[in-house]
Amino acid sequence: MSRIVIVGAGGFGREIFAWLRSSPKFLEREKIDSIVYIDDRDHVSGLPAPCIGTIEEYVPSGNDKLICAIGSPEARQQVVEKIEARSGVFVQFLHDLALVGINVVADAGLVVCPNVVISSDIRIGRHVHINSNCTIGHDVVISDFATLSSSCNLTGAVEVGESAFLGTAVTVIPGKTIGAGALVGAGSVVLRDVPPGVTSFGNPSKSYGLRNV
Amino acid sequence: MSRIVIVGAGGFGREIFAWLRSSPKFLEREKIDSIVYIDDRDHVSGLPAPCIGTIEEYVPSGNDKLICAIGSPEARQQVVEKIEARSGVFVQFLHDLALVGINVVADAGLVVCPNVVISSDIRIGRHVHINSNCTIGHDVVISDFATLSSSCNLTGAVEVGESAFLGTAVTVIPGKTIGAGALVGAGSVVLRDVPPGVTSFGNPSKSYGLRNV
Amino acid sequence: MSRIVIVGAGGFGREIFAWLRSSPKFLEREKIDSIVYIDDRDHVSGLPAPCIGTIEEYVPSGNDKLICAIGSPEARQQVVEKIEARSGVFVQFLHDLALVGINVVADAGLVVCPNVVISSDIRIGRHVHINSNCTIGHDVVISDFATLSSSCNLTGAVEVGESAFLGTAVTVIPGKTIGAGALVGAGSVVLRDVPPGVTSFGNPSKSYGLRNV
Repeated sequence: MSRIVIVGAGGFGREIFAWLRSSPKFLEREKIDSIVYIDDRDHVSGLPAPCIGTIEEYVPSGNDKLICAIGSPEARQQVVEKIEARSGVFVQFLHDLALVGINVVADAGLVVCPNVVISSDIRIGRHVHINSNCTIGHDVVISDFATLSSSCNLTGAVEVGESAFLGTAVTVIPGKTIGAGALVGAGSVVLRDVPPGVTSFGNPSKSYGLRNV
Repeated sequence: MSRIVIVGAGGFGREIFAWLRSSPKFLEREKIDSIVYIDDRDHVSGLPAPCIGTIEEYVPSGNDKLICAIGSPEARQQVVEKIEARSGVFVQFLHDLALVGINVVADAGLVVCPNVVISSDIRIGRHVHINSNCTIGHDVVISDFATLSSSCNLTGAVEVGESAFLGTAVTVIPGKTIGAGALVGAGSVVLRDVPPGVTSFGNPSKSYGLRNV
Repeated sequence: MSRIVIVGAGGFGREIFAWLRSSPKFLEREKIDSIVYIDDRDHVSGLPAPCIGTIEEYVPSGNDKLICAIGSPEARQQVVEKIEARSGVFVQFLHDLALVGINVVADAGLVVCPNVVISSDIRIGRHVHINSNCTIGHDVVISDFATLSSSCNLTGAVEVGESAFLGTAVTVIPGKTIGAGALVGAGSVVLRDVPPGVTSFGNPSKSYGLRNV
């Protein structure tokens, strides 16, 4: 049997626990019999599972399967690379109610929340997060550490660069690119490519200088 | 066995019948063997179940479980308080395809339509309506008689005040508050708190004086 | 046993294959034992099923059930009318994860993708396409050859005219009409009727002269 270690005990960490509990097929397939947290804060209250210690001091055991629940691309990258350097193994977590089509290739650390629809011929990099009710069209590419918040719509042949962050309910029209490290604000409608590193928002989305990371 | 009494035979009342029929688990759990309507209009045609009389004259029977299908917060409040004063019992209706996470507490009269995702650590007041495909993030509070139309997205730690009405596809960024009695127009993206009682709309959403109730 | 013939081997054609494969109930009900494509382009690579020839030269066999995977209303109409003139039979494809309520009447060629919610008292014409995660409210009318892209929201009593094209994540408030042949851009929020034949976009959506077909 294996243990899920949720990395990060904030709001998204609590959501991940909820999605694990409503994914009996996933838990059975991965032979999970317990769930714990690790987090660098001293005391996190109100957690639905025990916090067994800090990320700093965590030593992976052979039966641990890790899920990172840190929404920020940069913070997530820092943490997972630290843990991977200690040979920690991140799984791909797809909620039982997520739908994955055909010819979809994804790397370690993928997190896909309920009601997400991923269609066909899609490449997804390392440690990408896709929150609830997103739709991902054909021929989309999503690069390492990108985050899609809930209800984003990536139409056909969209590209999302490394560590890009899309807020809730962002829509991108066919063939457009969100540059690496860009931040697209909630509810934005992207009609033109978003350059790397900028903050962009609105309908239509406009880019406003470098993102403040 | 019990009877569902749908209060209000308008468009949403017909939708509720459709969602009941596609929720066999709910019907079995609540031991429902018939569905009827009550409505104050004289003749409502095209209903999928009998209308047994007016709301004014309705006398609850011991086996009746009530669902209010009136979308307007104010009209809903008037009607349910009248019926509750006669000891009518409103149930919580969660469609079989709605997903409810952990540590979600809700009061009587909750209506949750298909494909809604409610995550973790959420408090929901009396007679709240959440229409299809909404997403509700962690630590959200929704107060009595609020209405969320289809495809609304409440991100983390959003608060929705009593009797607020959110139109279809409203998105609220983390931590913002929709004041009591506010009306947020369809497709709005809420980046700032919406004061109580106002009408607000647009992307970003702007507030335009008192709501005309 | 029967064969599904997907008409059009582009991106949406590959998505349709994915949705067929994730719809075992549909495949069983229609007694499908194989899936093929027809397409007028010479060589389409990377398909998940064989392309057996061109649309021009296709001769329907008695066991063929056709699904048109061409998103453009005009191109779809040209192709399906050509094939129907040769007695080809288009089926209604509803993904297993689509939800259809009560008193919903639809004609041949309907395509409904995952997580779509269609409520009650709705009329849908010939060869209408409804992509993933759309919500369709009560008393909606959708006319022949209209296309709804992913995550569109049609509230109550909306009318969509013949061959209208709605981009991704379009929201239409209650009672409004999208005219025949109109194109509504992605992410638009329709607060006023859209005249026939125009292009309209934005929040609120504005109309900008005749659509360039």
